[in-house]
Amino acid sequence: MAKNRIKKQHKKIGKAPGSMIYTGEKSTKKLFIEVFDYNVEKCTEEELPTIEHAFDFKGSDSVTWININGLNHVDAIEKLGNHYNLHPLVLEDIVSISQRPKIDEYEDYLFVVLKMLYHDKDDNVLYEQVSFILGKNYVLSFQESEGDVFDTVRERIRHGKGRVRTMQSDYLLYILMDAIVDNYFTIIETLGDKIEDFETDIFNGNVNNSINKEIQDLKREILKIRRSIYPLREVISRIDKHESSLIQKRTKTFYRDIYDHLIQVTENIDIYREMIWSLMDMYMTTISNKMNEVMKVLTIMASIFIPLTFIAGVYGMNFDHIPELHYEYAYPVFWGVMIIIFLGMLYYFKRKKWL
Amino acid sequence: MAKNRIKKQHKKIGKAPGSMIYTGEKSTKKLFIEVFDYNVEKCTEEELPTIEHAFDFKGSDSVTWININGLNHVDAIEKLGNHYNLHPLVLEDIVSISQRPKIDEYEDYLFVVLKMLYHDKDDNVLYEQVSFILGKNYVLSFQESEGDVFDTVRERIRHGKGRVRTMQSDYLLYILMDAIVDNYFTIIETLGDKIEDFETDIFNGNVNNSINKEIQDLKREILKIRRSIYPLREVISRIDKHESSLIQKRTKTFYRDIYDHLIQVTENIDIYREMIWSLMDMYMTTISNKMNEVMKVLTIMASIFIPLTFIAGVYGMNFDHIPELHYEYAYPVFWGVMIIIFLGMLYYFKRKKWL
Amino acid sequence: MAKNRIKKQHKKIGKAPGSMIYTGEKSTKKLFIEVFDYNVEKCTEEELPTIEHAFDFKGSDSVTWININGLNHVDAIEKLGNHYNLHPLVLEDIVSISQRPKIDEYEDYLFVVLKMLYHDKDDNVLYEQVSFILGKNYVLSFQESEGDVFDTVRERIRHGKGRVRTMQSDYLLYILMDAIVDNYFTIIETLGDKIEDFETDIFNGNVNNSINKEIQDLKREILKIRRSIYPLREVISRIDKHESSLIQKRTKTFYRDIYDHLIQVTENIDIYREMIWSLMDMYMTTISNKMNEVMKVLTIMASIFIPLTFIAGVYGMNFDHIPELHYEYAYPVFWGVMIIIFLGMLYYFKRKKWL
Amino acid sequence: MAKNRIKKQHKKIGKAPGSMIYTGEKSTKKLFIEVFDYNVEKCTEEELPTIEHAFDFKGSDSVTWININGLNHVDAIEKLGNHYNLHPLVLEDIVSISQRPKIDEYEDYLFVVLKMLYHDKDDNVLYEQVSFILGKNYVLSFQESEGDVFDTVRERIRHGKGRVRTMQSDYLLYILMDAIVDNYFTIIETLGDKIEDFETDIFNGNVNNSINKEIQDLKREILKIRRSIYPLREVISRIDKHESSLIQKRTKTFYRDIYDHLIQVTENIDIYREMIWSLMDMYMTTISNKMNEVMKVLTIMASIFIPLTFIAGVYGMNFDHIPELHYEYAYPVFWGVMIIIFLGMLYYFKRKKWL
Amino acid sequence: MAKNRIKKQHKKIGKAPGSMIYTGEKSTKKLFIEVFDYNVEKCTEEELPTIEHAFDFKGSDSVTWININGLNHVDAIEKLGNHYNLHPLVLEDIVSISQRPKIDEYEDYLFVVLKMLYHDKDDNVLYEQVSFILGKNYVLSFQESEGDVFDTVRERIRHGKGRVRTMQSDYLLYILMDAIVDNYFTIIETLGDKIEDFETDIFNGNVNNSINKEIQDLKREILKIRRSIYPLREVISRIDKHESSLIQKRTKTFYRDIYDHLIQVTENIDIYREMIWSLMDMYMTTISNKMNEVMKVLTIMASIFIPLTFIAGVYGMNFDHIPELHYEYAYPVFWGVMIIIFLGMLYYFKRKKWL
Repeated sequence: MAKNRIKKQHKKIGKAPGSMIYTGEKSTKKLFIEVFDYNVEKCTEEELPTIEHAFDFKGSDSVTWININGLNHVDAIEKLGNHYNLHPLVLEDIVSISQRPKIDEYEDYLFVVLKMLYHDKDDNVLYEQVSFILGKNYVLSFQESEGDVFDTVRERIRHGKGRVRTMQSDYLLYILMDAIVDNYFTIIETLGDKIEDFETDIFNGNVNNSINKEIQDLKREILKIRRSIYPLREVISRIDKHESSLIQKRTKTFYRDIYDHLIQVTENIDIYREMIWSLMDMYMTTISNKMNEVMKVLTIMASIFIPLTFIAGVYGMNFDHIPELHYEYAYPVFWGVMIIIFLGMLYYFKRKKWL
Repeated sequence: MAKNRIKKQHKKIGKAPGSMIYTGEKSTKKLFIEVFDYNVEKCTEEELPTIEHAFDFKGSDSVTWININGLNHVDAIEKLGNHYNLHPLVLEDIVSISQRPKIDEYEDYLFVVLKMLYHDKDDNVLYEQVSFILGKNYVLSFQESEGDVFDTVRERIRHGKGRVRTMQSDYLLYILMDAIVDNYFTIIETLGDKIEDFETDIFNGNVNNSINKEIQDLKREILKIRRSIYPLREVISRIDKHESSLIQKRTKTFYRDIYDHLIQVTENIDIYREMIWSLMDMYMTTISNKMNEVMKVLTIMASIFIPLTFIAGVYGMNFDHIPELHYEYAYPVFWGVMIIIFLGMLYYFKRKKWL
Repeated sequence: MAKNRIKKQHKKIGKAPGSMIYTGEKSTKKLFIEVFDYNVEKCTEEELPTIEHAFDFKGSDSVTWININGLNHVDAIEKLGNHYNLHPLVLEDIVSISQRPKIDEYEDYLFVVLKMLYHDKDDNVLYEQVSFILGKNYVLSFQESEGDVFDTVRERIRHGKGRVRTMQSDYLLYILMDAIVDNYFTIIETLGDKIEDFETDIFNGNVNNSINKEIQDLKREILKIRRSIYPLREVISRIDKHESSLIQKRTKTFYRDIYDHLIQVTENIDIYREMIWSLMDMYMTTISNKMNEVMKVLTIMASIFIPLTFIAGVYGMNFDHIPELHYEYAYPVFWGVMIIIFLGMLYYFKRKKWL
Repeated sequence: MAKNRIKKQHKKIGKAPGSMIYTGEKSTKKLFIEVFDYNVEKCTEEELPTIEHAFDFKGSDSVTWININGLNHVDAIEKLGNHYNLHPLVLEDIVSISQRPKIDEYEDYLFVVLKMLYHDKDDNVLYEQVSFILGKNYVLSFQESEGDVFDTVRERIRHGKGRVRTMQSDYLLYILMDAIVDNYFTIIETLGDKIEDFETDIFNGNVNNSINKEIQDLKREILKIRRSIYPLREVISRIDKHESSLIQKRTKTFYRDIYDHLIQVTENIDIYREMIWSLMDMYMTTISNKMNEVMKVLTIMASIFIPLTFIAGVYGMNFDHIPELHYEYAYPVFWGVMIIIFLGMLYYFKRKKWL
Repeated sequence: MAKNRIKKQHKKIGKAPGSMIYTGEKSTKKLFIEVFDYNVEKCTEEELPTIEHAFDFKGSDSVTWININGLNHVDAIEKLGNHYNLHPLVLEDIVSISQRPKIDEYEDYLFVVLKMLYHDKDDNVLYEQVSFILGKNYVLSFQESEGDVFDTVRERIRHGKGRVRTMQSDYLLYILMDAIVDNYFTIIETLGDKIEDFETDIFNGNVNNSINKEIQDLKREILKIRRSIYPLREVISRIDKHESSLIQKRTKTFYRDIYDHLIQVTENIDIYREMIWSLMDMYMTTISNKMNEVMKVLTIMASIFIPLTFIAGVYGMNFDHIPELHYEYAYPVFWGVMIIIFLGMLYYFKRKKWL
């Protein structure tokens, strides 16, 4: 996990700064370019065959959202970047997928990187880097591959739901980021469920070593999610403070709303971290309790039978002169004594609350 | 618990921002609207049949407190909100019950969200979200359902106790928040009692696994209470710094008093957190001490009887030539030796302070 | 302890803000009012029969210290407060004994609350709230009951020792607070002694469950002391920054001296906290070491005698054909073998350093 | 490790400040001086026989990089320093290899110290101090000995790859530092691998004392790496804020890129620290689990056979009157009872999930 | 230790502020006054018989260092203080040896207190308080008793080594403080050695209770050293920011150098703290590992021999009809079975990796 991320970074060592190197897994995914161009009155939605088709939208009065999927197509991204006058380091960051969430403010556009989190089929958490360029009248978005959490956004643009068609590109960026942040709630809810399952398991005495490992894995997963989400707070707060015509004052209220959501998400993450620590505590004490129980069984069994065995051993001795051996009722008396010792021991352990 | 909260939020994922969705449990509770309208001379108290009746109070010279119970009645709240020119995000937050305590400052009103904590019949802590709109001459309050901690406030308004009737709406908001904060003391006092009960239990050696679970639950409860109360400090401090005619200078002294109370509450919460950690320490060491005791019993029993049994076994052997077997006083001598070994062992363990 | 404090606060819930409610234990202690009135030339010391006698000192040119003991006499305090134009919230705070140390700056006086710590006869730490009003030419002090740490201050005023008689009321407040802070050193020194006693106990292997409890109690005591003293640093530092004629520049050097002392006290408290955590570590490891020792005794005893007993059991069998039984020197040989096994075992355990 | 570093410092105690003392290990490494002198059009690369040859490059219009290897040649460094007007404390710091990463801003040059980390043949992490002097048109670099991570930089200068030949000395410093920071990723990646190996080991039950030691060593290694890298963030951020013609505005964007990388590195380090703590947790719980297993085996064996042995002992007694001894089927019945007890015990332990 | 320090402070309780009370151990050490008076050209060094001889140096143009040893001579110090116009609180602080390192800025002098750390003959760390008064052209230093770390400073003044004779009193103060800080490295190096010794001990399984105690003592020593050194960073940084002719701009570079050293020292201290925590971890896990080993021996011995003993017991029974007893080869068969069980057990434990 964390290791993979570092290995990817590693690939670039020794390259000149500003070199565009896709650091994700090699893939042959095809480039998928989708465009929404809309204003209050109309909305056109297209899938573009080549990146050059995206050049025409620059400078239109309507709001344009160009969504590029497939970071492995470095050339296409570079062409688009040059057309939109993006800084080489921005292009390098877009295709280098180990970025922390961050915002870079350039003269006529904002560059935002964040992590889109979602579950794969096996409920593993996937981390996909999404970059946004917010310019006057346009938003460019870059994803590693097709498939995202933006379907509700598309729906709203298409059918003019809510206020999206009446607002500018800054509002478009807002609803895109809002969709990503909303999905964080799903991710951490699943985490919460897992933690509660572990808790039930441990409470039921299931303390084998593999649950130990799984808890450690979960702890690490939370660390990783936390790292993907925390820096986003700073990003949003920088947007709120950003002074230019790119972000309108009335939109800032909405960004502050995302900020509130992020605080909620990160608070929940912190709570889950504490809950996991508590899990480890419960785990340790449960082990100790079980050991205690094991020891009690041993001690009770041994304490009862060891003296009895000794006495039986005594009367198994072959001394010539052991008078008790010849008493007529010696054997029943022996059993009586045994039973008395046995009951006395039981009473003693009962009083000690070991039984 | 924490999980539930997240699930509620989850319901809204994919909705347009500003959509008013009640995120609490579906309920059929009826809408209950209560109005106090007062100034120095008079005080009228009414229960309103419909939300439209509340519109007339806007703009009156006297101070008006409109208390709306039933957040599931989203339509009514929206109508009232529009009448009072509230921002759509404010209305969304009012009915979305997973808010953190916060304050949002708008041009002609303040929006405050906080958590009202109280015990249900089984002494569980309930968390109800309460929102306040403080405007010129009016306070709107929104609660999830009927039943609150404001009875003393009503009493004071009705009978003109204290200075409430001579003051403005900012003072009304103050006494409402003060009532909520005062109740926090009751909540954490009960926590303190529970912790002391656990402590007594553990000290008495009650260290089964279920007390472990209960302590973890209590730890989580404290975390949750903490999270509900901590951000309120920031809210109050923002009110204190707020610069507009809504909050008068002479009222700020009172808000600072709430602030002091909050510091006390949160300090106590932190102390209880530390006490719970200490509980876990006591729990662990108590388990270890018990194990020690168990092991001592086993070791003493085994150490005493195992050598004795060995000797008895020796004289149970069937060698043809074991001279001791034929001595006349062998048997009493045997017992004597046994008793000496036994006493020697007891003395040894006594000296080691194991007995 | 902590619990009591909260319970006291609890009494007031539902009362109008500014209500003066004595939150300490009901007591019938009589009101004791003491006055010092002095300047460079003269010093008068009086015990006043009623609170009204204290009114005359207001406005005198000489410095006046009015020391009121008995917070249960709410009426008298209110009269005095009104005469000196104190804010209702100040009067409420004076009699509400669960205040944190704090300073409130009013137009013509400063209000300071802090905790006086001293030992009762059984060496328990008592926490008494002391409030000061520093005005032009006067200091009012309010204590829960008679008995304080101010005797050296009285002595110095009476006999004009040091510079007190040549200074203003701000210096008087300083020496009063200095006396309280000096006494903190006594308190924490006793704590240090207790911790060292525990350490010796644990080092000597005294690890029963009740010492565990006592350490937890001590931990909590330190927490409580810390909470009583820490906020005072902020108070002193606010006095240092206070800009008005009440605190003269040359006196501030002295307040900075108190500040240094407070830093020393709180540093020592933090060291004691760390020492207590170390105590718990020592406690745990001592338990584990003892358990280890117990287990070793058991293992050595069992490992030596169990094989011996087995061999004895073998020759106690009744098979018809056991040739060894009939050898003439079988029995001495048997003992020889036993002794060799025994010594071999001892050597083995010696080499393992278990003996 | 840490200790060595302090010992080195120790050598200097008692010397006058500003004395140049090489604090590394005595070595007879020869001085190796390498010079790159380039601009857009040309690039010369030389190895200089003596330090005096380096004097001529001062004041040239082209960018000069003088790379000095061999801090033990204190005299040569002093001569160069004097020629370039470096402050005595700077020279002292260059040869004193226990510096923390830091930046000192002088009038006409910047002095930067940092740590170059790389693996030796046995994969141990080596820490070599590298100092840079950034002046107008030149960069001086000082390394303890030959061998570094700058080969890609040399390559780029030689062949004019990327923009290096078109930029000033501030950009040269940037790519040198970038090369060092890039290599940090290799170092921490190896750490991550080690941690995962330990995790697998522990999960497989390998909990001997030597793995314990190795984990502690790794913990310390991470501490040391962290200490070598953390302060560099402050250095870079100071460069970003530096106001002089030495650092051009367009280069600052690149330094901000290094800053982002450093954040990534330090975040990964922090994650590895947490992972190591988790390792210790896993280690402890694995030990406890193993102990539990050992105890269960003992308890099961003892609990089953101790009662059986007792019964066998009973019928080995020599009482004259034990009626069972004479029953014809007593022996098979005895075995039947034994087997029933045996199976009963097994069932009991099965139900307790000990088997 | 820490306790002693508090006890010393305790002596002063109840005294008027500004009273000069020597709080160290009563001692009859004689007063030792040493004077260096120098400028570029000349240097005189004297031992003064009485404090009055020191008065003449005030106002000389050359730099004067008056070094007073023997804080018990309160009167002499007071006389000197009055002659140099020192504030009473400064004089109080000089003789009150429980000061934290601090700097107080007065109009025409600086007052600096710090701790000189050195080893006594038994390698215990001693803490001696040293106070400096830096005035125009003079430095006064106050030590508890003779013996210090300033010999190299004296040497340099005497023989005009380095730049000391060419600089002002601020540089003198610098080299004095530098000598003290340099010695901190020796102190913490010894700590590092101790920690490594403990580590080796624990790794070799030496986990008795007394090593536990020693580690706790070391932990406390580090706490105490940390407390003596940490506040000095603030002191130095205040000197660096000090704005007056007392500290010249060119000297500030040197103070910044001390600051760097202090950062190194405190970083090392923090590393040692972490190492000690790791020691405790190793200690705990080593104990657990040893316990595990003990338990395994017990379990192996018991598991092998208990069933064998049972079988031997069976054939020691006296039933009339035990057919096996009469088989001719019963006895060798019995031994064969025993050996098979024995080897089977060994194999089982081998496979479980307990052997």
